Amino acid sequence: MDVTKTVEKILAKNEGQLSGIYFVACGGSLVDMYVAEYFMKAESSKCFTGWYTANEFCHVPPKALDENAVVILCSHGGNTKETVEAGRIAQSRGAQTVGLTHNKEADLFNVSDYSFLYDWGADAEVKNNPMAIILDLTVSLVAKTEGYTHYDKFKEGMGIIDTVVKNAITQVQDRVKVFADNYQNESMFYIMGSGPSYGHAYGFSICSLMEMQWLDSTSVHSGEYFHGPFEVTDQDRNYIMLMSEGRTRPLDERAKTFLQEYAKNVEYVDAKELGLDLIPSEVNEFFNPILFYSVLSEYRLALSKVRNHDLDVRRYMGKVTY
Amino acid sequence: MDVTKTVEKILAKNEGQLSGIYFVACGGSLVDMYVAEYFMKAESSKCFTGWYTANEFCHVPPKALDENAVVILCSHGGNTKETVEAGRIAQSRGAQTVGLTHNKEADLFNVSDYSFLYDWGADAEVKNNPMAIILDLTVSLVAKTEGYTHYDKFKEGMGIIDTVVKNAITQVQDRVKVFADNYQNESMFYIMGSGPSYGHAYGFSICSLMEMQWLDSTSVHSGEYFHGPFEVTDQDRNYIMLMSEGRTRPLDERAKTFLQEYAKNVEYVDAKELGLDLIPSEVNEFFNPILFYSVLSEYRLALSKVRNHDLDVRRYMGKVTY
Repeated sequence: MDVTKTVEKILAKNEGQLSGIYFVACGGSLVDMYVAEYFMKAESSKCFTGWYTANEFCHVPPKALDENAVVILCSHGGNTKETVEAGRIAQSRGAQTVGLTHNKEADLFNVSDYSFLYDWGADAEVKNNPMAIILDLTVSLVAKTEGYTHYDKFKEGMGIIDTVVKNAITQVQDRVKVFADNYQNESMFYIMGSGPSYGHAYGFSICSLMEMQWLDSTSVHSGEYFHGPFEVTDQDRNYIMLMSEGRTRPLDERAKTFLQEYAKNVEYVDAKELGLDLIPSEVNEFFNPILFYSVLSEYRLALSKVRNHDLDVRRYMGKVTY
Repeated sequence: MDVTKTVEKILAKNEGQLSGIYFVACGGSLVDMYVAEYFMKAESSKCFTGWYTANEFCHVPPKALDENAVVILCSHGGNTKETVEAGRIAQSRGAQTVGLTHNKEADLFNVSDYSFLYDWGADAEVKNNPMAIILDLTVSLVAKTEGYTHYDKFKEGMGIIDTVVKNAITQVQDRVKVFADNYQNESMFYIMGSGPSYGHAYGFSICSLMEMQWLDSTSVHSGEYFHGPFEVTDQDRNYIMLMSEGRTRPLDERAKTFLQEYAKNVEYVDAKELGLDLIPSEVNEFFNPILFYSVLSEYRLALSKVRNHDLDVRRYMGKVTY
């Protein structure tokens, strides 16, 4: 499927009556949906939304979920049980479901009214990754129902983001090696970010560090930092600070000012410095996480190499019963 | 103010048209609002909602925020700049604002159409704490506008929760000392929970451990655990597992089963074992966090004593510029 056709079919079926868009997945797939929910809260005045880890959606589905709602589901492997069950529940409430996966034989297809078999890997363009597809689908649904002033600029951004990402990956090659060398023996990392990018602060913590490196980690929202978490800051704690372009940048700047004074081990990953300002300023905030995911993947790869801990090593996932 | 009168006045002013209830605060005050947003998502089919750290609300207010919305604000000290600014923005959009604080001279009063000066401290009844007031206000607004089937049982629960909490505090006195002795030299804790209680897993991490004990910590949603974070689990990692009563208990049970097999250092804090089932089963899930906050406060007090790190010690908050 492609986004335009999917949007057309959804709106043909519900006669243009869109009551809500919900985002349901687990772990890394859920992370990829965070920015789409951020967009909904910031730019839709007519639709409900929600960002749910699938098993919670299954046990406590939103009361507002009805036949005019769309539920977007994503499972990389395609068979995540709670995500498939969430699709079944969404359909039983009459909602239309969109499923995204990288598996041609996915169980998710059985509960998806519309399906996307997405590209993945180093050669795939980021605009064909689930994060971009879900965001494009969401923005397009809102644009076609209640309107979105900057829709043309958003589409323009979709045409530019792959160039931005490719340049940024080249740009960080040296610094990720320095980072990996400096931090190879550290065991705990604080990942900070705000707004559209908080999902990827969380994602780098749970997927890249906990899951793929078995390292302790947490994510801290730049705005929340000053209301508890900053008390733990000292010259020994390690921070990765995601500096977003867009409306929440002042939150990140405030955290940076504090970290520069009271911390020593901080890696700043700055979307502006990495070229995100090539995308029109009215919409570039929504592209932060697409850039950050690709750039942070370079950081984790470098770290995995110097630590001799392959990114694919698992001890429980797919190996034991749970 | 009291809850009933506030609800009456709000609905008199907006002629019963409630478009949304938003929860805006920072740190511990924001944590106290989590369950009210959970209730909205689970039990309201007509109102928008959102749970915002105040500075993000200020920079990216929800587009759906309008003159029929209610914005609930909370600041313990009463002068948190971004929370006061959020109130100003909410009022400028025509929304009605409710402010809660423990400070008689709070700046928050200046941007609150309705104000609660709440009780606090060991002698205060939990039903007069901000968490219960905000929850009661939210449930009552929904009950009076779109209806809530279990409203009578919820009100019954409000009359029982102080007894449950008092009994539970007595019940845990020995175990919190054992916990503190066993974990006094540990430096990193994973706090897990789900559904209505996830907010307090987050809260114990950022307030009780990072802020008050300068300890590393993170919170993990029981449902997300199996999609990344569980890979870090081993015999040396430390967990506090909040077992909730209610619809998301199966998520916690699943995590418990795994932890019992693959972890050693786990403290289970179980709302059922601590007497929450005294409250009718249709509504007791909403009271989990009220119980957990009080019980976890005993854990942190015991830990602070054995570590000789007073809960009130700060190095930045209120001491340096930020």
